Amino acid sequence: MGESFGIYRYGADREMMPLITSANVACGFHGGDPGVMRETVALAKAHGVRVGAHIGLPDRIGFGRRYMQTSPREVYEMSLYQLGALEAFLRAERMAMAHVKLHGALYMMAAEDSALADAFAEAVQAFNPALRVYALPGSQTAVRASRLGLPVVPEYFADRPYVSGQVKMFGWTPEEIGSPSEIASRTASMLADSAYADIGTICVHSDTAGAPAIMRAIRDRLHRTFVEDPAGSEAY
Amino acid sequence: MGESFGIYRYGADREMMPLITSANVACGFHGGDPGVMRETVALAKAHGVRVGAHIGLPDRIGFGRRYMQTSPREVYEMSLYQLGALEAFLRAERMAMAHVKLHGALYMMAAEDSALADAFAEAVQAFNPALRVYALPGSQTAVRASRLGLPVVPEYFADRPYVSGQVKMFGWTPEEIGSPSEIASRTASMLADSAYADIGTICVHSDTAGAPAIMRAIRDRLHRTFVEDPAGSEAY
Amino acid sequence: MGESFGIYRYGADREMMPLITSANVACGFHGGDPGVMRETVALAKAHGVRVGAHIGLPDRIGFGRRYMQTSPREVYEMSLYQLGALEAFLRAERMAMAHVKLHGALYMMAAEDSALADAFAEAVQAFNPALRVYALPGSQTAVRASRLGLPVVPEYFADRPYVSGQVKMFGWTPEEIGSPSEIASRTASMLADSAYADIGTICVHSDTAGAPAIMRAIRDRLHRTFVEDPAGSEAY
Amino acid sequence: MGESFGIYRYGADREMMPLITSANVACGFHGGDPGVMRETVALAKAHGVRVGAHIGLPDRIGFGRRYMQTSPREVYEMSLYQLGALEAFLRAERMAMAHVKLHGALYMMAAEDSALADAFAEAVQAFNPALRVYALPGSQTAVRASRLGLPVVPEYFADRPYVSGQVKMFGWTPEEIGSPSEIASRTASMLADSAYADIGTICVHSDTAGAPAIMRAIRDRLHRTFVEDPAGSEAY
Repeated sequence: MGESFGIYRYGADREMMPLITSANVACGFHGGDPGVMRETVALAKAHGVRVGAHIGLPDRIGFGRRYMQTSPREVYEMSLYQLGALEAFLRAERMAMAHVKLHGALYMMAAEDSALADAFAEAVQAFNPALRVYALPGSQTAVRASRLGLPVVPEYFADRPYVSGQVKMFGWTPEEIGSPSEIASRTASMLADSAYADIGTICVHSDTAGAPAIMRAIRDRLHRTFVEDPAGSEAY
Repeated sequence: MGESFGIYRYGADREMMPLITSANVACGFHGGDPGVMRETVALAKAHGVRVGAHIGLPDRIGFGRRYMQTSPREVYEMSLYQLGALEAFLRAERMAMAHVKLHGALYMMAAEDSALADAFAEAVQAFNPALRVYALPGSQTAVRASRLGLPVVPEYFADRPYVSGQVKMFGWTPEEIGSPSEIASRTASMLADSAYADIGTICVHSDTAGAPAIMRAIRDRLHRTFVEDPAGSEAY
Repeated sequence: MGESFGIYRYGADREMMPLITSANVACGFHGGDPGVMRETVALAKAHGVRVGAHIGLPDRIGFGRRYMQTSPREVYEMSLYQLGALEAFLRAERMAMAHVKLHGALYMMAAEDSALADAFAEAVQAFNPALRVYALPGSQTAVRASRLGLPVVPEYFADRPYVSGQVKMFGWTPEEIGSPSEIASRTASMLADSAYADIGTICVHSDTAGAPAIMRAIRDRLHRTFVEDPAGSEAY
Repeated sequence: MGESFGIYRYGADREMMPLITSANVACGFHGGDPGVMRETVALAKAHGVRVGAHIGLPDRIGFGRRYMQTSPREVYEMSLYQLGALEAFLRAERMAMAHVKLHGALYMMAAEDSALADAFAEAVQAFNPALRVYALPGSQTAVRASRLGLPVVPEYFADRPYVSGQVKMFGWTPEEIGSPSEIASRTASMLADSAYADIGTICVHSDTAGAPAIMRAIRDRLHRTFVEDPAGSEAY
């Protein structure tokens, strides 16, 4: 969320916000700017959505999706900077930051590199050790944040294909993702699968084609499965 | 302070930090970057110097010194963003932000335009109403910040000429500024002048030629005048 | 045209290109980037559209629409830089640059300030004195470019209201602009008005709401009026 | 050369320009800006120095020294953009561009990756196939540029250590580089070594500590060895 920039609009923020419980808000590096951040925080507040910092690489033209050679110290510094910048807008709205999540290439870099994961975790700890860290299950990010005592929330990507249990973050096709209904079924099955027992947050990207329809399909399915008919959840 | 950027070094930060009591630290808009901010905050901490946010225009190539058409809302947003970004580094060092000061063209724009001054003051109030606002005496910035109940600290620019009681911020010559000794004399005279009775902070720019020598001359002069021989201060 | 940036899409370039005869292409300052420039030039070539450089201020977040304090030397330098950058993509497609037009706030700044207009004209003369300069009739840009012997093409803004003969570039309402049909009528009337006898190019912005429909309405109207029934043009 | 930016000064350009025969000038991506480019081209002209484009990654904060995931198409596009931008300043001074050289991480990336090297070579060919390509001997850049018929000039880095015949571009110590006198001796030895028979240009970085002294030492040594006492060159 909040990945628009200047005159440029991006992502289905207005349609998505009523459908979600927590938003990852860009902090002006890979996307977003001070005006977009203010608006996005206000939008989240209006819908009672928890806000987290979506921390990205300083690569606006590549939208933070390109791997960049980055030192642990730089990860520490860019994490602190972005955490602070977003918190100012939350404070102005009398809200508290709830969580933090790395973005794009930085998400994958820290998932694989323990030194970068450590640097990120140290920045979060220094800034606010109560922030929940959204991370890929089993990633270095999750491991090193846990080691520092930070609350880690394992994440499932509803709108990305999983191959042999591994999320395929880049280079997927729309066919691999499937229809909103197929995504909803896959998500419900996942939640009923003991291998995913620790999943604590389900991600849908606001810039995935049809994101609001995907989000509604997931919500409906989960509501029917786990709220209306919890006993029937084993059918999945 | 903290106006270096990437590989580029700027300003006599290392020489100045031992000589001052409060530092205005750039926040990554007109100057500075996350690495420079971390280093500058650490340097201030090592010397027991209070840190404030030096908030600038998003104009790196012009160093925030060019007037830009900016709406009050943009001033509000860019102030919040920069305040938050800097505070993250202070918090990581277990320091508190002490003050805030606009930079360059934005300093002058808000001094003259009450709507921009209001927007800035509202951002400070929303962020932390205990922050002291360094401002030109009589400026809109001072007036509007006071109206919101923010503590305002009137500022004297030791290394800028004053013409008819007005500071000449741009377009001055080195001759108008004078030698460190002349600057020190002028500063001591000012402090003994009832017209300047409310001055609460004396500014020397870290990028003024000979800034450390100027700073030392002022410190020496003020120490001799007001500490060693307070009764003699009327001689100025 | 070509004002997209990175992942951000902007303007109805694909719909507009088949409808026009000359395109003003952004050069990476207010909008555009190297990839967008390459694509836009290729698109123009595919449709036989002449390409000109659309030179903007270095203010991506404000899209070059904010007045910025800019010296004549800076205008000279930013004009040369952008002219050269665009020409490289044209050369790679074996095309020649046809014209040049300032963008946004820079367009208005040079229109009103003879020193800025001179700087721009000198950059064009140094780069390629055969380039046609699109300019507001009577503007300093037109006057100073003519003085240097550059071919000037007075410009009419079809999708902006004119009040007392003066174009209203900013702060207009959709009602003032009117429907595509009203715009087409206004344009045809203008062309039949001796006060606009020197107009050489008609501008429709690719980001005006309904730009392709506006463009089609103008084309149809002008075709009917001046091609099919030239004698009837006096009816307007 | 020309790697200053805005208010930031960088590199010993003024001291180096009288000592060299060709300058690689930054084009506003890793370093430089339109004003710096204009000044640097004028300085080169004043000293009769040939100018080439020093093409870098769009990473100003990292000065183009960080590897970034970059596609061949992006290399093609960023090369064209920068070549064109620099040529505009040369044309305004009635100079012709003489050569082209990749910078920093992009230099190393293309040296090792044939697809990136191809993309760069295609951009040069499309822009001006007479440009001489400065490249590491045996690099993909050299190989692919030659394949397209571009004139390639193998390059020796005087101010970098060579280990087992391979230049050590990053992570070296001042001790490995040695004094100006040692550098000069090493360079003269290299030129007398048949393994380096095809070297056509000797590089000294304007930001290496003591660059002007290094340059003078090399010039003196080569003059004595190859001009005053060419027969004695075998002594090396």
